[in-house]
Amino acid sequence: MKLMQLGNPGAETPAVLAEDGRTYALSGLTGRIDGAFLSGGGVERVRQELAAGALPLLHPEGLRVGAPIARPGKVVCIGLNYRDHAEETGAAIPQRPVVFMKDPATVVGPYDQVPIPRGSVKTDWEVELAIVIGRRAQYLADPSEARGVIAGYAISNDVSEREFQLDYSGQWDLGKSCEAFNPLGPWLVTPDEVGDPQALGLGLAVNGEVRQAGNTKNMIFGVEHVVWYLSQYMVLNPGDVINTGTPAGVALGLPGNPYLREGDTVELSIDGLGTQRQTFVNA
Amino acid sequence: MKLMQLGNPGAETPAVLAEDGRTYALSGLTGRIDGAFLSGGGVERVRQELAAGALPLLHPEGLRVGAPIARPGKVVCIGLNYRDHAEETGAAIPQRPVVFMKDPATVVGPYDQVPIPRGSVKTDWEVELAIVIGRRAQYLADPSEARGVIAGYAISNDVSEREFQLDYSGQWDLGKSCEAFNPLGPWLVTPDEVGDPQALGLGLAVNGEVRQAGNTKNMIFGVEHVVWYLSQYMVLNPGDVINTGTPAGVALGLPGNPYLREGDTVELSIDGLGTQRQTFVNA
Repeated sequence: MKLMQLGNPGAETPAVLAEDGRTYALSGLTGRIDGAFLSGGGVERVRQELAAGALPLLHPEGLRVGAPIARPGKVVCIGLNYRDHAEETGAAIPQRPVVFMKDPATVVGPYDQVPIPRGSVKTDWEVELAIVIGRRAQYLADPSEARGVIAGYAISNDVSEREFQLDYSGQWDLGKSCEAFNPLGPWLVTPDEVGDPQALGLGLAVNGEVRQAGNTKNMIFGVEHVVWYLSQYMVLNPGDVINTGTPAGVALGLPGNPYLREGDTVELSIDGLGTQRQTFVNA
Repeated sequence: MKLMQLGNPGAETPAVLAEDGRTYALSGLTGRIDGAFLSGGGVERVRQELAAGALPLLHPEGLRVGAPIARPGKVVCIGLNYRDHAEETGAAIPQRPVVFMKDPATVVGPYDQVPIPRGSVKTDWEVELAIVIGRRAQYLADPSEARGVIAGYAISNDVSEREFQLDYSGQWDLGKSCEAFNPLGPWLVTPDEVGDPQALGLGLAVNGEVRQAGNTKNMIFGVEHVVWYLSQYMVLNPGDVINTGTPAGVALGLPGNPYLREGDTVELSIDGLGTQRQTFVNA
């Protein structure tokens, strides 16, 4: 199932993209796709209503696509989680997941413009598989228990300003939390449709030139390990988002460091999760 | 003005502690003290209703005290912001604010129990002056503009697990984001009552033994500088919380490293902002 939210920022209509290729409105079931919806059996209700033919058609043409999850309580990120990316940045291969956070308000729609912050000369991209949590998780006994708390997956662009992230202090969050620095979506895809989350090709191109071409099979710490690990230290709540790291090919690691400039367009894709496209503009 | 929230978690009643020492319910004005209330003129409405004698009395006896702000969008922290604390941890004096984040869901009431995470042997305390944002702020031109976006101040205990924070990776957020690791309150005190935020004594005792005794005049980066600085890199939204750093005297810096154990009681105070008291229990 592909859940999405369509409409202007803050006034999106929840919707489902069904297997027949049509979009149906969920406004009769919920005001938004959020943690309460996911933990309250919302996905099962959508499935029942779809099967019963009870959902009204929605015409998505011309509507903005919002992030597929409203108001995430937190956005947790795993750094250096692909060996080739750790190597390109000159970092050691981590022995444990490297955990940092972004301002949850940075989550925007997959086609929204992204401002290059004032003073920035090192705005960079990162295609990532995002996990969306569907049930409260704390002290999971085993990585296999992670399956029961994952609501689904989405494409995430973990936009990063490398000077703010790496040069201003040893802590990365500042360079990860600028306005609109986390395009998410277009869809929240349920695990049954995604299949093996460790076998997904993921890629990113800038102005049509391929920059990242990886596969989630090359994660150092896989999806289930990451969810299990985080649950030992923090409470994962429904609606929380976890960005699982990016493969090689970011501007920081490329010859000449081709950081983003006004007018650049970034396109992202992950197998089964759709595509994103953002134009970067000066703030 | 001293705003507070009284009642069980998730079902608190907003209230004001007036200059006559009585507590009045704000439930006729708002469902909760949150960003929308603060940015929508809520404080001014409370002032008018108080002056008009229009608020109903509330009897606070026996009611739990919750955090004075509901659902903060983010909790931003400034690390190593007192010279003596930077020195006790062996860190260099920072040239710019060190910025990291906590899970916003860690914010709990000032007298709530705090679990020591499973496996933790280095759970530590940090008394801090917290700023609560009242108006959206981005790219403030000057630190003096910060005054216009600060809704008020509160006591914050930036509870920290030093092994998770410092030994597991270079990023601190993991050791800052355990369950209930951010007791806040009891009150959100408006700036007119606080006076000079850079002249507040702040202290902390463990089982009655004074461990921290500092003054906000010794911050490296003051309140207005911090708000101005953050606004250059992220959007500060109404309801956001900023922990401004802790003075010397944490377990990490004390002889013998007396980290918290089950049954320990921590008491915090900041001039004009009241007191906190938490008992630590094993998770």
